[in-house]
Amino acid sequence: MVKKPWGGRFQGAAHKLMERFTESVSFDSRLYREDIEGSIAHVKMLAKRGILAEGEAEEMARGLSAIEKEIESGEFPFREEYEDIHLNIEKRLIELVGDVGGKLHTARSRNDQIALDERLYLRRETTEVLSLIKALAAAFLDLAKRYMGVPMPFYTHLQRAQPVLLSHYLLAYFEMLSRDRRRYVDCLERMNELPLGVGAGAGTSFPIDRHHTAELLGFPRVSRNSIDTVSDRDFVIEFVSTSAVLLLHLSRLSEELVLWSSKEFDFVDLGDGFTTGSSIMPQKRNPDVAELSRGKSARVYGNLTALLTLMKGLPFSYNRDLQEDKEPLFDTVDTVKSTLEVMAEMMRGVDFKPQNMERALEGGFSTATDMADYLARKGLPFRQAHEVIGGVVRYVEAEGKGLQELSLKELRGFSKLFRKDVFECITVGGSIASRRSYGGTARGNVEKMLRECRRELKGW
Amino acid sequence: MVKKPWGGRFQGAAHKLMERFTESVSFDSRLYREDIEGSIAHVKMLAKRGILAEGEAEEMARGLSAIEKEIESGEFPFREEYEDIHLNIEKRLIELVGDVGGKLHTARSRNDQIALDERLYLRRETTEVLSLIKALAAAFLDLAKRYMGVPMPFYTHLQRAQPVLLSHYLLAYFEMLSRDRRRYVDCLERMNELPLGVGAGAGTSFPIDRHHTAELLGFPRVSRNSIDTVSDRDFVIEFVSTSAVLLLHLSRLSEELVLWSSKEFDFVDLGDGFTTGSSIMPQKRNPDVAELSRGKSARVYGNLTALLTLMKGLPFSYNRDLQEDKEPLFDTVDTVKSTLEVMAEMMRGVDFKPQNMERALEGGFSTATDMADYLARKGLPFRQAHEVIGGVVRYVEAEGKGLQELSLKELRGFSKLFRKDVFECITVGGSIASRRSYGGTARGNVEKMLRECRRELKGW
Amino acid sequence: MVKKPWGGRFQGAAHKLMERFTESVSFDSRLYREDIEGSIAHVKMLAKRGILAEGEAEEMARGLSAIEKEIESGEFPFREEYEDIHLNIEKRLIELVGDVGGKLHTARSRNDQIALDERLYLRRETTEVLSLIKALAAAFLDLAKRYMGVPMPFYTHLQRAQPVLLSHYLLAYFEMLSRDRRRYVDCLERMNELPLGVGAGAGTSFPIDRHHTAELLGFPRVSRNSIDTVSDRDFVIEFVSTSAVLLLHLSRLSEELVLWSSKEFDFVDLGDGFTTGSSIMPQKRNPDVAELSRGKSARVYGNLTALLTLMKGLPFSYNRDLQEDKEPLFDTVDTVKSTLEVMAEMMRGVDFKPQNMERALEGGFSTATDMADYLARKGLPFRQAHEVIGGVVRYVEAEGKGLQELSLKELRGFSKLFRKDVFECITVGGSIASRRSYGGTARGNVEKMLRECRRELKGW
Amino acid sequence: MVKKPWGGRFQGAAHKLMERFTESVSFDSRLYREDIEGSIAHVKMLAKRGILAEGEAEEMARGLSAIEKEIESGEFPFREEYEDIHLNIEKRLIELVGDVGGKLHTARSRNDQIALDERLYLRRETTEVLSLIKALAAAFLDLAKRYMGVPMPFYTHLQRAQPVLLSHYLLAYFEMLSRDRRRYVDCLERMNELPLGVGAGAGTSFPIDRHHTAELLGFPRVSRNSIDTVSDRDFVIEFVSTSAVLLLHLSRLSEELVLWSSKEFDFVDLGDGFTTGSSIMPQKRNPDVAELSRGKSARVYGNLTALLTLMKGLPFSYNRDLQEDKEPLFDTVDTVKSTLEVMAEMMRGVDFKPQNMERALEGGFSTATDMADYLARKGLPFRQAHEVIGGVVRYVEAEGKGLQELSLKELRGFSKLFRKDVFECITVGGSIASRRSYGGTARGNVEKMLRECRRELKGW
Repeated sequence: MVKKPWGGRFQGAAHKLMERFTESVSFDSRLYREDIEGSIAHVKMLAKRGILAEGEAEEMARGLSAIEKEIESGEFPFREEYEDIHLNIEKRLIELVGDVGGKLHTARSRNDQIALDERLYLRRETTEVLSLIKALAAAFLDLAKRYMGVPMPFYTHLQRAQPVLLSHYLLAYFEMLSRDRRRYVDCLERMNELPLGVGAGAGTSFPIDRHHTAELLGFPRVSRNSIDTVSDRDFVIEFVSTSAVLLLHLSRLSEELVLWSSKEFDFVDLGDGFTTGSSIMPQKRNPDVAELSRGKSARVYGNLTALLTLMKGLPFSYNRDLQEDKEPLFDTVDTVKSTLEVMAEMMRGVDFKPQNMERALEGGFSTATDMADYLARKGLPFRQAHEVIGGVVRYVEAEGKGLQELSLKELRGFSKLFRKDVFECITVGGSIASRRSYGGTARGNVEKMLRECRRELKGW
Repeated sequence: MVKKPWGGRFQGAAHKLMERFTESVSFDSRLYREDIEGSIAHVKMLAKRGILAEGEAEEMARGLSAIEKEIESGEFPFREEYEDIHLNIEKRLIELVGDVGGKLHTARSRNDQIALDERLYLRRETTEVLSLIKALAAAFLDLAKRYMGVPMPFYTHLQRAQPVLLSHYLLAYFEMLSRDRRRYVDCLERMNELPLGVGAGAGTSFPIDRHHTAELLGFPRVSRNSIDTVSDRDFVIEFVSTSAVLLLHLSRLSEELVLWSSKEFDFVDLGDGFTTGSSIMPQKRNPDVAELSRGKSARVYGNLTALLTLMKGLPFSYNRDLQEDKEPLFDTVDTVKSTLEVMAEMMRGVDFKPQNMERALEGGFSTATDMADYLARKGLPFRQAHEVIGGVVRYVEAEGKGLQELSLKELRGFSKLFRKDVFECITVGGSIASRRSYGGTARGNVEKMLRECRRELKGW
Repeated sequence: MVKKPWGGRFQGAAHKLMERFTESVSFDSRLYREDIEGSIAHVKMLAKRGILAEGEAEEMARGLSAIEKEIESGEFPFREEYEDIHLNIEKRLIELVGDVGGKLHTARSRNDQIALDERLYLRRETTEVLSLIKALAAAFLDLAKRYMGVPMPFYTHLQRAQPVLLSHYLLAYFEMLSRDRRRYVDCLERMNELPLGVGAGAGTSFPIDRHHTAELLGFPRVSRNSIDTVSDRDFVIEFVSTSAVLLLHLSRLSEELVLWSSKEFDFVDLGDGFTTGSSIMPQKRNPDVAELSRGKSARVYGNLTALLTLMKGLPFSYNRDLQEDKEPLFDTVDTVKSTLEVMAEMMRGVDFKPQNMERALEGGFSTATDMADYLARKGLPFRQAHEVIGGVVRYVEAEGKGLQELSLKELRGFSKLFRKDVFECITVGGSIASRRSYGGTARGNVEKMLRECRRELKGW
Repeated sequence: MVKKPWGGRFQGAAHKLMERFTESVSFDSRLYREDIEGSIAHVKMLAKRGILAEGEAEEMARGLSAIEKEIESGEFPFREEYEDIHLNIEKRLIELVGDVGGKLHTARSRNDQIALDERLYLRRETTEVLSLIKALAAAFLDLAKRYMGVPMPFYTHLQRAQPVLLSHYLLAYFEMLSRDRRRYVDCLERMNELPLGVGAGAGTSFPIDRHHTAELLGFPRVSRNSIDTVSDRDFVIEFVSTSAVLLLHLSRLSEELVLWSSKEFDFVDLGDGFTTGSSIMPQKRNPDVAELSRGKSARVYGNLTALLTLMKGLPFSYNRDLQEDKEPLFDTVDTVKSTLEVMAEMMRGVDFKPQNMERALEGGFSTATDMADYLARKGLPFRQAHEVIGGVVRYVEAEGKGLQELSLKELRGFSKLFRKDVFECITVGGSIASRRSYGGTARGNVEKMLRECRRELKGW
């Protein structure tokens, strides 16, 4: 039986089943770097304040650095009986540097320590996520430039709606990523606060200097209420809900890539590097990356549900339930990073198929709105113009024609307002060119917007 | 059979079951005010740009105002067959002002119109939520002032942990509300962008001026990609996820009020105005408001799940699925507002029971940490000090004593480092007074923090 | 100020905000029928056991029936101050029949009463859901019959995979509905248990006969633990989780209808009765019913999340949080019923487009697996056969040919095992006909399965 | 570059990032046993049907068994490039037994293979879950026996409600577990169906005998629609939603254990083996197992959300998204099993504290309902009786007395119906003894129910 660091008042031994059920070192060992970084800053501060002797602090810092190396080289003897990363490290420190190691936990509790580790961890990871978002956004801007001028239909209700530029379409994804980025930045700002130094939740009687610790660890602020500090996991939830929206966006992109990879749409070639085959059907080329990305949204939603449920109705302050916050967080971080990374790499290499996109504009009456707008510009109330063109569409559909194939005479059978100039506005090119309203798909607009996005991206 | 405003190309009639299944006017009629406000701004802009004649615009604006009055007086003839609030109003406008009403939908689609209505609605509601948060936060500050100096145990694992000031405890809720507020402010900032003027999703060929519309409606920005504009519901999700965290916080508060209302804790009296009786047990006084508030978190989580699921994997741009975003949003707004409102009113009137709180500090060894810190300050490594005090606790528990009842001799049996001054630091008052570290519970700290919070609140 | 039926021990008045926040009559009035049915059975049982006089019971039953009529005619004076449907009815009964009405609540609590109302309600609704499932399943069987023999590709990864019969495809939906039905039946069986008679949760001291009440209300079983009875909402959650899976199935069907309605697939015509137009684009015909059905899954998932969250961590027994179970339940019932109903009606009228389905089989190498199987039957290990055909596909793709257009000579360039008979097995018809393994798509199989399903449906 | 088993038609190499993103062998290797078991049955069937030579089948079966040993000894060379457990094993088989190993995939696809593996896996795990439920239920029955006769209050709204027997309380948990068990049994029944033999989703042209495979693997039924078979994950979702309800139940139990372990309630001692200490507060004994169990519900809810979201709106048939079903399933299985196991072990050793439970009955007016029932039995309408006793409670509360301390004279001041016999019915013992209605807490009832539960348990 192992002596627990907290075992003073206990007589009976911990039950093996309980140890296995409650241990967290199998997953929170992932925080070893942050744990050690935080401990080193802690002992430095203690020394500065005279709570530890300088020599003690240095010895401990050396011991902690040695432990970091042990962990990184795979030699560290993790033990389930010491529950978590904190006690595993503390125990090892005492082994390495002797009794002085027992001073590490002065003016500190695992309650504020884990809050510190998580904030350090998530601060770093959020920064990485931000740069991955930037890379994916850049890929969209490159694509928008590469395909400038290519028309395609956009869809509502998965029905062909109106002609737009493919580049305009691609820039829509930039908008979503730009909002995602902004939310992560806000989230980062909010999490960037030192929790260490509130002890178990009441503060400490040692004359510590939390602002000094904050400085050592690069935190611009110090948390100001000890009870809240050990009870709070808002920063975890906010990161995960921000990620849920990001993954939602990627699931929409993925859905379109899946659709566009189908023989029926055939708008895109994802490349051999990003498609896979079937174990039985020799002809298959499947858009697996897109499908999995779509599916990954589900796991992040699940993680969000888990975290919100976890915290619901918990009284102040720390409760052991909180230990369950780590796996959903880690899984979310991994999912967000790997999905962004593979998506950016894939998007850099996709080939769109302009001919097929243009062909999709031919049959579908996608300029019917332009025709109605034409009548409206001639003074017919739009609602009536819409009705007239509805009749035109019904007519050409019955005749098996396209809108462009109608004669002026036929058109004038529907409305005397039609003149020859109608034929310009119902070409794909004419339709796109006319959408000059701010935010619209006219080429000039799109080029300008691309420049604006590029400028924005530089500032990210 | 009613003629649909979009029915030009249709021959068969809409099936009654489909009409009932797809109608939204039974719930989106709630947006009538925003819809009319948006339409009036739209026609003004159209007139300014010469797309409508001045007289036409004025006539329509008058008609729209008349419709608003009809709706508010309950006389408006809502019809399921006209699907939604937009077409109900447009149809009525044509009835009231004649064919010119058919020009209302010029350079507009329901796709951008509903996005506008929702943003206007949510902008207003978010502002109201912000002021309700302020009111609840103020109630906590008042309580913190009223009870300044009252000690109580804070709990970890629902076990008595250490003595703190009740006011310190109450200020922890202020922290949570302060974060909630900040998130709503960010959310408000992001949603505050004009979507109108992108038409169905490609922009429009009419020479509209979206920046003018934005000015009329008080939007500081104009959306810049038409496809994104009609596809995006981020602002709805962000509002609901922000609300989920707020409700999470309120569920924690509620849980504590339920606990504290129990005979076992007996820390608080919620008042006859905020408790109810039992239909069968005459003695009951139940903390129903707190229980329901705790439960309300569940419905907001449910709304969040619904919205995230709804949007998952939808291709661009508008899909009819999006219609399902409204009920979860409305329900969230109602839940957030009513819960904040009742909670603030209840908290203003609660009576805490200082005697019972103090009594809870007597038996529970809540100053054991102070004793260990005492030894640590004398030079014993904290980990060993912890072990020593563990033994002390085991001893007094066996003896049926409290920590304070030990003699110095007994204590010195555990460690020779004990001196007479230990008895000061293990009183409740001594313990609290010693927690002077930043964020700790010492009275001076708490009073200062209360002043700081009060200053902050003024700026909200 | 209204006197509360439970107000004996209260001095202060209920706060108006609390009344509004905690009332449930605005939604639980929906249970009036069940509430009255249960009360009538209750008083009959009380009379049979001599707890009430016969005359009293009859008078109360008459009063209750009168109340039912008042409610149905819209004349019942619902009052928020009486909180819920139970107290509204009891209060009104006392008004109608005098003090004897005050005996209605003998040996009963709202805790067991609401459990009864919900079970009665859900038992009836589940039965209706079962018959709606049957109707939709029947529609699939009819379609399978109507289109027997029509080939189409089935898809994996949204890539054309292999030829199957459309009827086989339609029968796959029958399988899903059959499982859904079975789950509802299990759920119905479990909920069909009388809760009434356990009082607030400890049982009652009146000599009631719960088995008699059960008989009067058609319950085959009586709940056997009073505490569990008032704490349990498993039956609500099970209904909703069963519904979540049903809606999941319908969301998959809907997704396919949306895909198949696109110009790109063009496999189905949903009919003018079940499509709608656009307010701006005159040519649109949108599959709104399918899109909304897909979206409806989201709200049922949301309801499930809400219910699970609601119950999490609630101590025994009744807590006011439970009041929040009703709206998600009602909403789920409404959603399930309306979606099944409209879906069945729509499916009865869909027209598939066999020519387009067949055309989709032409280009996509959908019989490549048959070719590999051919080689495997000739003795080549399947993995090698797969590899060979992979090469063939690459070749024909480069040549711009279809598989059927290859000459035997070309084929033998890939493997000497090819003989003339290969050409049979790579036609669409040959491929389908060969899938005779149990569960496979050969016509004989499908026809047999259709008969089997029809037999099964009769037994539903 | 590794040659993919499906790579015939591919020219470009798989991108490393894609390989890492799409691989599943890192988690589906957990299914190795099922995969091999299924493959052996498959080749036996192929041999029986003459599709393989007997010798070939035997060779492959030997190879597969050898692979199983390699995996179990940790020597198996898992390779990410071979994606999943299926191809890793197939590749290795070919290495071990040569080209004949390439025949393993005859008449099979990974689509039906993974469906088989998951069903085999979940069938086994569900059986284990059933026996763990039985063990926990048995612990409750043992406790109910051990504490027979001990009174305690049950709570509604966390307010003391009425006296019950602790054993009655414990049996309420048996009811919940009994329902859970029943749901798992239904779920097991439904999943117990052979999917193998439907190939990629259309069936196969090889003359296989699926019923023989089913017999070899112990499946009572064979799936009857190939498309449904490869698309369906209902069995996974049903297992997880059933588990969500089980964990919900355990979260309620845990909440009570946490409450009851608090100093304020002090109803239970969980034992040193199942509590832990604090790293900083030497006096703490925390109910971590209960807290974590409460928290574990969150992760299972999260898994359920993930699975439902994952499947939403997926068209038929197999899509790569489905790969994401495994981790939530595995995690749910692990969570359910470990929580049940530790909970059963802990419950076997808990010590309740009858004295503290009885003390909780003294102050709380818990027999007020009995007093009202007393008056109702004397003929006063219950609603009036309730009102009278409300007044009595208000009176004694003001006087600082208990109900039992009132004199008859005082009582008759409230109602002339009071006689001396009222004092019997308002003792705790009298109250409990009077609850003889079916399901009530009278000792005779509870003892009888305990016997009935014991009988039922034997049949599990």
